[in-house]
Amino acid sequence: MGAADRSTVNSRLLLVRRPTGVPVADDFALDQAEMPEPANGSFVVRNLFLSVDPAQRGWSTTGTHYAPPVPLGTVMRALAVGQVVASSNDAFPEGTHLYGWFGWQEYALAQAEDVLTVIESLDISLSAYAGILGINGITAALALDRIGQPVAGETIIVTTAAGAVGSVATQLARAAGCEVVGLTGSAEKVALCVERFGCDRAINYREGPIEPLLDANVARGADILFDSVGGDLLDAMLRRLRRGGRIIQCGTASVPSWAPPPTGLRNEREILLKGLLWAGFVIFDHVPAFEGAVRRLATMLRAGELVYDEDIRHGLSAAPGALADVYAGRNSGKALIAL
Amino acid sequence: MGAADRSTVNSRLLLVRRPTGVPVADDFALDQAEMPEPANGSFVVRNLFLSVDPAQRGWSTTGTHYAPPVPLGTVMRALAVGQVVASSNDAFPEGTHLYGWFGWQEYALAQAEDVLTVIESLDISLSAYAGILGINGITAALALDRIGQPVAGETIIVTTAAGAVGSVATQLARAAGCEVVGLTGSAEKVALCVERFGCDRAINYREGPIEPLLDANVARGADILFDSVGGDLLDAMLRRLRRGGRIIQCGTASVPSWAPPPTGLRNEREILLKGLLWAGFVIFDHVPAFEGAVRRLATMLRAGELVYDEDIRHGLSAAPGALADVYAGRNSGKALIAL
Repeated sequence: MGAADRSTVNSRLLLVRRPTGVPVADDFALDQAEMPEPANGSFVVRNLFLSVDPAQRGWSTTGTHYAPPVPLGTVMRALAVGQVVASSNDAFPEGTHLYGWFGWQEYALAQAEDVLTVIESLDISLSAYAGILGINGITAALALDRIGQPVAGETIIVTTAAGAVGSVATQLARAAGCEVVGLTGSAEKVALCVERFGCDRAINYREGPIEPLLDANVARGADILFDSVGGDLLDAMLRRLRRGGRIIQCGTASVPSWAPPPTGLRNEREILLKGLLWAGFVIFDHVPAFEGAVRRLATMLRAGELVYDEDIRHGLSAAPGALADVYAGRNSGKALIAL
Repeated sequence: MGAADRSTVNSRLLLVRRPTGVPVADDFALDQAEMPEPANGSFVVRNLFLSVDPAQRGWSTTGTHYAPPVPLGTVMRALAVGQVVASSNDAFPEGTHLYGWFGWQEYALAQAEDVLTVIESLDISLSAYAGILGINGITAALALDRIGQPVAGETIIVTTAAGAVGSVATQLARAAGCEVVGLTGSAEKVALCVERFGCDRAINYREGPIEPLLDANVARGADILFDSVGGDLLDAMLRRLRRGGRIIQCGTASVPSWAPPPTGLRNEREILLKGLLWAGFVIFDHVPAFEGAVRRLATMLRAGELVYDEDIRHGLSAAPGALADVYAGRNSGKALIAL
């Protein structure tokens, strides 16, 4: 694919307002800029699939440990799968498929450090590299390995179990011989968790108070909590952990806002008396392990041992709404924007 | 020392009422029972030093993960150092010095499983085996090694830094090349932390609001938090941890009661964004490592590389008051009762 395929303008989604809580459409503006030209080792990536991730809330507001907030008036930070269409870098020649920090835009002027994965096996759908073979699947695999350390026969609670991370964590925990109880937000997703992803049981936390739901479904306690929701749900699940339990903190999606600082049950006594281990999993602390994780997941995919769902919308302007839907639980599978 | 040295009665402290919060004198009653006689593998231990430990609050009320509550009307559970004065077990002959679960009483009828350590080196004071060479020192050593994993140049905050666990943690962290900031409850203890135990700086948390005290003393953040206090102090210290920080949860001494469940700041976002690791340290999960830890600490003691303080009171009836004083921070050093 060469320069001839490129239009002369680059459509981009700029962050124009700091979201209060979950980002909404008006926090972004569609913009048209000149097509970038590569120089001094940079290269132009034509984005094919834009990733829509809960972490974007943090990037658009306060930033995170590994990245400052997205400056207002600049392209919204996002992961994407794309193809190099012009290059001044021999390591990333035209035609190369990449997964990396290419932003919510049609074309990215990228540097080597923006690349997370060079996509070598085109026998798997390219979109998969932005989901189950991207940070979602890698997060599930590495967080489970490094913090959860599942042992056959143990019980794990997986939150957002029908989601891009949770559905992979569920399948990997099952493959490790664990009993998996999924937590999700609708009756349809409960069915998906059990029938498609292999949860032994699943809970719709919107069905009623969480305590009796957990009592019914995790009666004997759990050994691992794969938590992406935080809040009162976390407190309730944490209290169902057995001695020596591990909590993987992977997200805090259920907490609408951190300003003013929300309060909840004190958890240090549970941690102490049960000898719990509670660790935050920050995927970008584990970049050297990405390649191995992607290979392992790809092998399982080819062997038919992993399934995944995608919720693909079309066109740049669909991105903000897709992000809002992720927070509202209205997506079904990994949220992607096809360009 | 033989049967001739024994009196015919055994004075004991019974738990007669469930404490609400911190145990007080009226929760216990002094009792005199018949001298026990060994049989079927048991042996009689004459207690020399009774240990007074914050964990006794848990044992006297709700129990803990590793032990049910002390039944009302029975001897208060406690660790002690003593000597075998009569034995029907060849592994524990008369004259042997032991550290174990011998209770707040003069004489204990013990079984092999009640023994934590067989005391072999009498060149160190026997009382040390109930403190710096007992669970206090062992806790400091193993919790620091296994959860804290100190690296030279890192900063650690140690709570109850003048106490039986904290003073050892302070010295071991210094020996590992860490900068140590102590937290303690009086100006006298601040001086003790710095001048005797080697803290680089120490904070009297009773001096005023904790936030500015931490800002002044942990301005660049900390890597490890050795926390035995919990509560709002924990929340404030946790927010000073750097990326990749570790929290050792070793106690919750600052929280007066867990019924009704107390609330506080939600901590999962800090854990997530900073990739923190927060783990409860339960000393009795690590019994196989005791012997090695005691040897290591004893070697440092003999080399003059560790100092320790003891607050020794005399007579069984002093025990409940000593426990209350531990909670009020009125002890100076490891609280022991000499019999």
